[in-house]
Amino acid sequence: MSTLCVPSQVPSVAEDCEQLHKAFSGWGTNEDLIISILGHRNAAQRKLIRQVYAETYGEDLLKALDKELTNDFERVVLLWTLDPPERDAYLANEATKKRTSSNQVLVEIACTRSPKELLLAREAYHARFKKSLEEDVAYHTSGDFRKLLVPLVSSYRYAGDEVNLTLAKAEAKLLHEKISEKAYSCDDIIRILTTRSKAQINATLNQYKNEFGNDINKDLKADPKDEFLAILRATVKCLVCPEKYFEKVLRLAINRRGTDEGALTRVVATRAEADLKIIKDEYHKRNSVPLDRAIAKDTTGDYEKMLLALVGHEEA
Amino acid sequence: MSTLCVPSQVPSVAEDCEQLHKAFSGWGTNEDLIISILGHRNAAQRKLIRQVYAETYGEDLLKALDKELTNDFERVVLLWTLDPPERDAYLANEATKKRTSSNQVLVEIACTRSPKELLLAREAYHARFKKSLEEDVAYHTSGDFRKLLVPLVSSYRYAGDEVNLTLAKAEAKLLHEKISEKAYSCDDIIRILTTRSKAQINATLNQYKNEFGNDINKDLKADPKDEFLAILRATVKCLVCPEKYFEKVLRLAINRRGTDEGALTRVVATRAEADLKIIKDEYHKRNSVPLDRAIAKDTTGDYEKMLLALVGHEEA
Repeated sequence: MSTLCVPSQVPSVAEDCEQLHKAFSGWGTNEDLIISILGHRNAAQRKLIRQVYAETYGEDLLKALDKELTNDFERVVLLWTLDPPERDAYLANEATKKRTSSNQVLVEIACTRSPKELLLAREAYHARFKKSLEEDVAYHTSGDFRKLLVPLVSSYRYAGDEVNLTLAKAEAKLLHEKISEKAYSCDDIIRILTTRSKAQINATLNQYKNEFGNDINKDLKADPKDEFLAILRATVKCLVCPEKYFEKVLRLAINRRGTDEGALTRVVATRAEADLKIIKDEYHKRNSVPLDRAIAKDTTGDYEKMLLALVGHEEA
Repeated sequence: MSTLCVPSQVPSVAEDCEQLHKAFSGWGTNEDLIISILGHRNAAQRKLIRQVYAETYGEDLLKALDKELTNDFERVVLLWTLDPPERDAYLANEATKKRTSSNQVLVEIACTRSPKELLLAREAYHARFKKSLEEDVAYHTSGDFRKLLVPLVSSYRYAGDEVNLTLAKAEAKLLHEKISEKAYSCDDIIRILTTRSKAQINATLNQYKNEFGNDINKDLKADPKDEFLAILRATVKCLVCPEKYFEKVLRLAINRRGTDEGALTRVVATRAEADLKIIKDEYHKRNSVPLDRAIAKDTTGDYEKMLLALVGHEEA
């Protein structure tokens, strides 16, 4: 489900490092060379490149990229080059900071990653920031948002497929009751969404639909401007249909007057090696235009080239 | 800091298994033989014994022990034989169930284990119960207890020694304000106790004492009968001085009219390979009697023998 294209004959790590070093040297930077290497290596290969690069040239590759590149192109290359758990830790940390705070990014990381991936991100957070993720989230949020976000980022959900249908029925009823009372941030809604396994939540929401007629997210749209309701809907979507969630993030990012490069970069860099192929299909179906064509229309230069490499655009 | 005595010459795993199997066979069970083996093997050795026993005799060693042993002796042998993360998962699950529910045991597991050990227990919980620990805790608790216990068992605290003193001062002040207002279950108290690293909490509570004169636990004793305050005090103790916490659990278990075997067994079985040596010293200092003598006075038979083996009692 990855869109990454790794050539069948990959040069040695030492060779990749030498080429990257060459791309940084002399007059100007060779962006095409950087894209041709980093845009076509998987996580394990990039990790090795970073390691060997540091050993050979005594400088962190990310530092070198940071010095040479700028703007959106820099951000997509840096995010992509990071190891996935480190990348999630980095994005989550940004999302807790005042200027760049984003509840949606926290929900995205907490709910679309597998329970194991979220744990690895929390470990990487310790290593990089000398604090825990939940500590920063709890400190920088308050009220209902804290009540939802802290358990979301702290969750280590059961990852099995087993489903308890009796429980699903009971909790579907409970959810419906609470939503009817507009008790959106009550303990029960939070508890169910933050602790149950994804399979169990899916079963519960199917029961909800069968029993009460609506998708839960329709019922959570009573006030379309309410920010807490919006974050609840994002939570539900990230848990049960991440590909639809990401399709919409891409759609909104691209359709805006002036592309939202932040969101576009984040989704492409974090999903390329995961489920971007499914997201791409979803995007095509929903917008009647292939994702790579939409990206090519909305972006330019090296940034465009790097994004297209990551979405697996085959050049003519 | 372990009290376990493993002989310098340990028989082969196969030999241990054969002896255990012999102990179960024939007329009656040879309890002494069981104690002489399992009471003197470390976690890695016991794990191997369980594995080889199952391969050799086609039966889980725990099942065999369960069939042969009874009462308190059975419980201490079973708990001890379990792998530590499995044992924590087992105890935590018991603590969420109606008849055996215990908030204190949950606090103990969440706060006296290292962040990594708690994670391993949560993994073992998935494997054994096909659910997550936080899911069961959230489901079986409510109100203030849920508000405290769910983030406690979900925490993955930063384990480093770095301390932010400015933050410690600010949060000590915040804790004091909230306690003065008797807002014991407010978001801030819960947030600080459930997300900060143990080193940071320790620094904060030192500041608290310096600035406001009392140990925080003294201020949390406004109403000695309030159960939520009691569980807050247990949380603080488990986080900053687990050996004092465990000493008190043992003291109360032994000093009661009719020993509290449940607590005694739990502390000995879970701490023998961890910090029971320090707890023993603490116990001796506080009660002017060595722990092994107190145990010998209060218990009998095979149960006594197994406990004494685990607390490292040297026989004459």
